[in-house]
Amino acid sequence: MIEIHEYIKEGANAYLKKQYTVISSIVAVIVVLLTLLGWYRMAVSYVLGALSSITAGFVGMKIAVNANVRTANLAKEKGLNRALRLAFNGGLVMGLMTVGVGLMLIVLQYLVYGETPEAINDIIGYSFGASSVALFARVGGGIYTKAADIGSDLVGKVEVGIPEDDPRNPGVIADNVGDNVGDVAGMGADLFESYVGAIISTMIVASTQLRGFSLSYSWSSFVLIPLVVAAVGVIASILSSFVVRTREGGDPSRPLTLATVVASILIALMSFFGITQLISGELGVRIWVVIVAGLVAGVVIGVTSDYFTNSKYPPVRRVAKMSEAGPALTILTGFAYGFLSAFVPTVVIAIASLTSFLVLWLPTQEFWLGIYGVALSAVGMLSLTGVVVSADAYGPITDNAAGIAEQADLGEDVRRITDKLDAAGNTMKSVSKGFAIGSAALTALAFIGAYASILQYYTGANLSNLFQSLTILDAGLISGMFIGVVMPALFTSIVILAVSDSAFVLIEEIRRQFKEKPGILEFKEKPDYGKAVAIVTSYAIKRLVLPGLIAIVSPLIVGFVLGPHALAGMLLAATISGLLLGLFQGNVGNTWDNAKKYIEAGYHGGKGSEAHKAAVIGDTVGDPMKDAAGPSINILIKLMSIVSLVFAYYVISNNLYQLLVP
Amino acid sequence: MIEIHEYIKEGANAYLKKQYTVISSIVAVIVVLLTLLGWYRMAVSYVLGALSSITAGFVGMKIAVNANVRTANLAKEKGLNRALRLAFNGGLVMGLMTVGVGLMLIVLQYLVYGETPEAINDIIGYSFGASSVALFARVGGGIYTKAADIGSDLVGKVEVGIPEDDPRNPGVIADNVGDNVGDVAGMGADLFESYVGAIISTMIVASTQLRGFSLSYSWSSFVLIPLVVAAVGVIASILSSFVVRTREGGDPSRPLTLATVVASILIALMSFFGITQLISGELGVRIWVVIVAGLVAGVVIGVTSDYFTNSKYPPVRRVAKMSEAGPALTILTGFAYGFLSAFVPTVVIAIASLTSFLVLWLPTQEFWLGIYGVALSAVGMLSLTGVVVSADAYGPITDNAAGIAEQADLGEDVRRITDKLDAAGNTMKSVSKGFAIGSAALTALAFIGAYASILQYYTGANLSNLFQSLTILDAGLISGMFIGVVMPALFTSIVILAVSDSAFVLIEEIRRQFKEKPGILEFKEKPDYGKAVAIVTSYAIKRLVLPGLIAIVSPLIVGFVLGPHALAGMLLAATISGLLLGLFQGNVGNTWDNAKKYIEAGYHGGKGSEAHKAAVIGDTVGDPMKDAAGPSINILIKLMSIVSLVFAYYVISNNLYQLLVP
Repeated sequence: MIEIHEYIKEGANAYLKKQYTVISSIVAVIVVLLTLLGWYRMAVSYVLGALSSITAGFVGMKIAVNANVRTANLAKEKGLNRALRLAFNGGLVMGLMTVGVGLMLIVLQYLVYGETPEAINDIIGYSFGASSVALFARVGGGIYTKAADIGSDLVGKVEVGIPEDDPRNPGVIADNVGDNVGDVAGMGADLFESYVGAIISTMIVASTQLRGFSLSYSWSSFVLIPLVVAAVGVIASILSSFVVRTREGGDPSRPLTLATVVASILIALMSFFGITQLISGELGVRIWVVIVAGLVAGVVIGVTSDYFTNSKYPPVRRVAKMSEAGPALTILTGFAYGFLSAFVPTVVIAIASLTSFLVLWLPTQEFWLGIYGVALSAVGMLSLTGVVVSADAYGPITDNAAGIAEQADLGEDVRRITDKLDAAGNTMKSVSKGFAIGSAALTALAFIGAYASILQYYTGANLSNLFQSLTILDAGLISGMFIGVVMPALFTSIVILAVSDSAFVLIEEIRRQFKEKPGILEFKEKPDYGKAVAIVTSYAIKRLVLPGLIAIVSPLIVGFVLGPHALAGMLLAATISGLLLGLFQGNVGNTWDNAKKYIEAGYHGGKGSEAHKAAVIGDTVGDPMKDAAGPSINILIKLMSIVSLVFAYYVISNNLYQLLVP
Repeated sequence: MIEIHEYIKEGANAYLKKQYTVISSIVAVIVVLLTLLGWYRMAVSYVLGALSSITAGFVGMKIAVNANVRTANLAKEKGLNRALRLAFNGGLVMGLMTVGVGLMLIVLQYLVYGETPEAINDIIGYSFGASSVALFARVGGGIYTKAADIGSDLVGKVEVGIPEDDPRNPGVIADNVGDNVGDVAGMGADLFESYVGAIISTMIVASTQLRGFSLSYSWSSFVLIPLVVAAVGVIASILSSFVVRTREGGDPSRPLTLATVVASILIALMSFFGITQLISGELGVRIWVVIVAGLVAGVVIGVTSDYFTNSKYPPVRRVAKMSEAGPALTILTGFAYGFLSAFVPTVVIAIASLTSFLVLWLPTQEFWLGIYGVALSAVGMLSLTGVVVSADAYGPITDNAAGIAEQADLGEDVRRITDKLDAAGNTMKSVSKGFAIGSAALTALAFIGAYASILQYYTGANLSNLFQSLTILDAGLISGMFIGVVMPALFTSIVILAVSDSAFVLIEEIRRQFKEKPGILEFKEKPDYGKAVAIVTSYAIKRLVLPGLIAIVSPLIVGFVLGPHALAGMLLAATISGLLLGLFQGNVGNTWDNAKKYIEAGYHGGKGSEAHKAAVIGDTVGDPMKDAAGPSINILIKLMSIVSLVFAYYVISNNLYQLLVP
């Protein structure tokens, strides 16, 4: 066990080292750029944001990698409950790091910079830094993890015929490392970005627009509310972790779901007191309603993802049944359910943001208070970040523990426990995927709100002019929307091609090792795990450049060529189409994955049947969609918005469109 | 040959009879509704529109069904060129029926109703009627044709092991009928709808908004321009048909492509004179530029589709190569290229509509002239309708001819000719699919422009109020966008599930026939083709109800609950996301289809190899996407817009949102 664990640790370190080296150079370039523009404070915030995300990811992964071997050991020595608690606590570190570090540093910047709009605007650099790291952790990590997964499987399982997670496979450690890289560091960085992004953009709307607010509240109360809600979320995450316990033979997915429900209720209760302290009377209650709308939307999105991806419900079962007629129908029905699964979450987000707008705008007729409401509902949803990241990071810990139990041959009983823990991890992964894309879309809306408020603040445009210029009757804005809607599709395409190319590179390496060291298959020689890790790492990071550039440069091109209104249209369209394609890919991948597992549990002919073969093909198709391309869209839509936000002032005053259409 | 031909004819008649019966009842309901609302003139136009589309489809299909057997015969007796010309002329009937009938009746209504805005607004009923028929022809036809295709293949090829198009298969006639139903009647009705829709909505913008136009032109010139451009298109279609000829052994796809190019050039030349006759000076030239922008966009979309789906270029070849590693990579790479293929057309449409807006708005500063430009660019693109429909209807004629040559055992040489004709048909099908969705999106934009102009006309809102209310800062509008973006995905999901369910119904029927009449397989008994046709027909039309209702009712629900601004957002978002998903599905299906054909031509192991098996799976997945779900989106986005347009006045004055937000 210790040997395998050491390999995973080494592999993870090798990956992180390479990744951090590349990130550092990107960060350096952007810092220089910001400094040249004279935005010193933003540059500092940018570095802080990047460091925070790296630290949270690094510590979280260290703990996760150490927790997996201990979970396997506890499963052997002390049984289900102790193993569950250790695995969850391992994930909790990542969860609390994410929210704790993020919240603390935002507060710190707020205290140091002061509360002028310009000061708070500069804090957006923190969010930008977090985004840059998230790009690497999520997109690069996604390409890495899926290339390792598909590559090792195609040679190991298909060509050579050894089981999954077999220590003879030179790619096995790369595959194990990938789980940590993708789900711990990747998901953590993704939600960290959403979390700080939602908080900061809400603060920006408040500081730029609610200053001249005609009601009798101190405007700084509005700036403080997102911080209070976030703080409440941290406390709720800690408290809810105590319910994660089970009896021997119980279903570990129950306490994990329960923790989310408990956290939601605690947040709803505690934030009521927090908010009404700052804003008394009816308005305080209305603001609280906004928080609850965000929370409810988050929970509904999680439940919908669960419905479409859990083998307890019809979609997965029907896909499994259709697999009897061959892979084409596996793919087609999965595809159909994937698209269907996007419907409810999208409508729920529409309702949540409309409610949040109306509940604050209607009684006050203060337009910006409505926009503030939309941004704040994102904070409400993301107050669950701590518990969601914990439950998600739990997944790879138990997945690795199961792998270690297999590779170290710990016996049937232990495997049964680790498999059970692993299955619960899969349920949580589906839920957190839905949550991640839903909250990314809501965060992107918050960014767009902040973008509009900065547009208004800097140009000093009166409200009606601003409205006019952001009308969908403007052909410039519509052309921005056409470009925006296709961006997530373009991104998906590039990431999937990167995964399949990287997988091919790994396949060649594994074949080479088998050929040059024929003793590997007879356990006589050790495969060179490190070489496999190194190859996938450097190739994955190389293929990250193009999508990274697209995410950063495309809004600048549209902004500088077609102007700030086309840019607003582009951001909005990318957000809604990203939500659709993100939900589709995340859910369809998990549907296929679980249909395969359902068949493996003995239905429709079980393992080895025609149905199973078809389901395996579905699973392979879904893998890069759910773990690489889908989650990358979260990053894309946020990064595009944040780049626009950072350069909003420049885009407003310098663009070609302006010359043409004064 | 005559026997098989008779079966196809009977089957096609049986399908059409059933379809027209159901359409009549729907038409009756809507006519009653329009009459009850007191919209008599619109009710008349509605009936005319439905009848026109039915007539064009019916005559076109009659001719096509008769042309297929003659094409097979000419291929046998007179060789390639004569067969090509006959097949193309068979398609030309459909093409000219579509544009001829449509243009003639619009002109007739214009002459009878007069040129007040109210009168021209009523002509929209004609477009509504065409849409209702298109829904059946395209969506119902799509479900029918793919269910017949997949159903007969799965039993025939996979279970029983007889070749495609084998006369022993009870589903074979249903499959042959399906080609005509889907590609002749379906594509014809779809483009007919776009064609009349673009013309009428341009006329609406002109009549409601350019009346008080400050320049010194008669406003009715602006109403006439779309009619003139359409007329030019009819003439160009006829003239260009003369270039369709080839030498023996030539590539028949060349003259077909050439016809499109010739038609484009003729339209560009002739419309210049037509337009400058009506509007002299610089403005006339500018309007001509708009037409050219639409034409160029249409051609570019066609070329892009060809690039991604023709085995001459890298995408199809790479998908074919990846198939060596099994079906999962066939699906994944196809998927990636499908998304990539949406990029260029979407950006081209953005550029075309922005250019069309700016080129008219900039010099005049007349906002509505810009909107008029966007609508007119759709007319420019659709002036190619005649030649595109001809080339598309050519496809099923040659496809059927190839089928007849196989079933009637006409020998190697004849098959080689019919296969060549068929291959050219496939190229044209890809191109016309891209054209259909691209023009549908541009038509939907024209509808949205007309919707906004009616909103302005009836509410008498001043321009700045209208702008304000259609701002993307309005949470109502944004919530409409969230709902709109997911509609094409929902539609896709429902159509695909309908196809797989209908295919299962047919599979059971074929199995029953094989079981009850064991002599079929030994050529001793005739299968009951008619029964198979009847079963798929009634099931497909039953499954059409839900998507049909969604397309018609969803904009009304959003309009009446969330108000006219949310409805505008919904329409726009559905259009852009429909364009994305339509292009994706159309292209990915053709990529897989042609990757399979490429392998069958002997590459990567040829027929029977592992790569071929993988490619067949890709093709089966792509089939309902490219021929049922994808094209259905064209109908969805137009039908939603036209329903909104017809009920615009009602939605404006009666909606719940208004009560909440006065």
